[in-house]
Amino acid sequence: MPNLLPQPYLLFLADVDVPNRAKTAAGLAHWVPDRCVGQFRLPRCAADVGLKELTPAQAAAAGARAMVIGVAPQGGAIPERWHEALLAALDAGLHLISGMHTRLSDIPELVARARDCARELYDVRHTDREIPSANGRRRSGKRCLMVGLDSALGKKYTALSLTRALSDAGVPATFRATGQTGIMIAGEGIAVDAVVADFVAGAAELISPANEPDHWDVIEGQGSIFHAAYSGVSAGLLHGSQPDAMVLCGHATRDHLELLPHIAHRDYGEAIAVHEALARVTNPGARVIGISVNTAELPTEAAETMLGDLQTRVGLPVTDPVRFGCAPLVDAMLMGEA
Amino acid sequence: MPNLLPQPYLLFLADVDVPNRAKTAAGLAHWVPDRCVGQFRLPRCAADVGLKELTPAQAAAAGARAMVIGVAPQGGAIPERWHEALLAALDAGLHLISGMHTRLSDIPELVARARDCARELYDVRHTDREIPSANGRRRSGKRCLMVGLDSALGKKYTALSLTRALSDAGVPATFRATGQTGIMIAGEGIAVDAVVADFVAGAAELISPANEPDHWDVIEGQGSIFHAAYSGVSAGLLHGSQPDAMVLCGHATRDHLELLPHIAHRDYGEAIAVHEALARVTNPGARVIGISVNTAELPTEAAETMLGDLQTRVGLPVTDPVRFGCAPLVDAMLMGEA
Repeated sequence: MPNLLPQPYLLFLADVDVPNRAKTAAGLAHWVPDRCVGQFRLPRCAADVGLKELTPAQAAAAGARAMVIGVAPQGGAIPERWHEALLAALDAGLHLISGMHTRLSDIPELVARARDCARELYDVRHTDREIPSANGRRRSGKRCLMVGLDSALGKKYTALSLTRALSDAGVPATFRATGQTGIMIAGEGIAVDAVVADFVAGAAELISPANEPDHWDVIEGQGSIFHAAYSGVSAGLLHGSQPDAMVLCGHATRDHLELLPHIAHRDYGEAIAVHEALARVTNPGARVIGISVNTAELPTEAAETMLGDLQTRVGLPVTDPVRFGCAPLVDAMLMGEA
Repeated sequence: MPNLLPQPYLLFLADVDVPNRAKTAAGLAHWVPDRCVGQFRLPRCAADVGLKELTPAQAAAAGARAMVIGVAPQGGAIPERWHEALLAALDAGLHLISGMHTRLSDIPELVARARDCARELYDVRHTDREIPSANGRRRSGKRCLMVGLDSALGKKYTALSLTRALSDAGVPATFRATGQTGIMIAGEGIAVDAVVADFVAGAAELISPANEPDHWDVIEGQGSIFHAAYSGVSAGLLHGSQPDAMVLCGHATRDHLELLPHIAHRDYGEAIAVHEALARVTNPGARVIGISVNTAELPTEAAETMLGDLQTRVGLPVTDPVRFGCAPLVDAMLMGEA
């Protein structure tokens, strides 16, 4: 994929039977509503991200430049019953964007039509960029990386909240995407989990290039260095990102890996120590500056108690950005600069 | 590649100008001399692994089943001036085996001739096996993984020495290969550094499958979790291997990453603590049971002093397997079983 995706988007929700399968569309509608002109649903679609209902032709007329597959179907493949809608989008003059492992560019019917319509197929999970081995050299600018006890507990949300809060405070900051939904939000990035293992850190070095000394890259995390399946992605991302600051993301009511429930989450204290030990290979000043906890399943008062107790225990700012904002994390990031 | 490579081999040393570029051939000649019938060199070849000089036709007559490219040319590609020799091997009835990133199967001339001769092209750096995500479940049998402060300091040598010493002691043990030379020695394995990052731990799970309770898999390590470029490979391999025992490999006279000299090696004590913290995600009993130090550049007495001092400092057995054998490591592995 090229460096910048064509925006704004029409969000294709297809015919998913569970609203939760429209996470990508929901993320886009939440974080970049100004870059989403509407949603396009097939009959019996159970998802709804609250945008105007538009056909591809109507969306194109309203200024959309691309249709995004905003859902993750069971099995991860693009079912044939969606082809008609995808072809209609090309016919309407929209490019197509997908974040799935299966590639749009592996579907001959779409390739042929895209060529006829002079439109592009963007498979954001895969990159055409030449990725070198990491060189481990320090780059100018500052970097904050989300790390976590697990996958799927709020690292992307925390990174986007932090970026917005920094910008609101007048601090130059850029969200850097490392996964498919993040890439669609940012319009650029590399899905590091699809890179060959030898080059993950090299990809991370490309994602947060040298910048102005007072500029912060806020880097979306992936998985966990403690994840039995995905630690390779997380370790390479950690070293290539050479973070000055890390925000450790946890979950208030989940104590095991979401995808591998027989494996317990590690303790926050141990996680801080191990992340700092590893990160200091490429940035001797790397520190965990705070903790972001997903408290979605706790009542407000219980959430406040839990966060307060954890803060006392680890001696770092602790918050749930969704409920309580991320001011304490921003303060901790900027305090290091004083 | 299939599960088992055709052996014995003719080792192709080509025309490399530096003996050090024939590391793969040297490893094969050292570890599996009974599976190497000879060497085949082009004019002006500076390498020599001490085997009988044979042409492909002579090697085939002597029982060879495949010719191995035993050198790593500068740039990593297969130069066109070698094609004649590779074609001659196919004509002589030998299969071809390469461990390079560049694939034999991407060279049309070789593909066509292999088809005509009904021979196979084995690119051991790449696997055709379907690799699943890791499941993190405990497997029966015991596993010892080589880990290290860096790449290229003796992990493969240590693993092969340990395997031999265990077998000599009557303990059932299998060397498990994770890189190209190791795969040629073992005849099977997966080059984990060429696997997509999301699947490294899954590949490691395939490499050391469930086994008899008293059987040891001795697993070749890759890179280092402290390597700025390759930690992703090492972290995934660590979790997928779920080692009971780890041997930490270091270097007596190198204190920085070989490929990235601006990055210092970590301290042995820190390396032990971080490896154990990470490994316990998939094996709560994981321990570093000893240290293997490459002392090649020290005189014998200085090497002995260095190893003794380190042993006192870390409180674990320390040896250089090349010079002093690996009995202390074997004792430490088996002590845990008592």
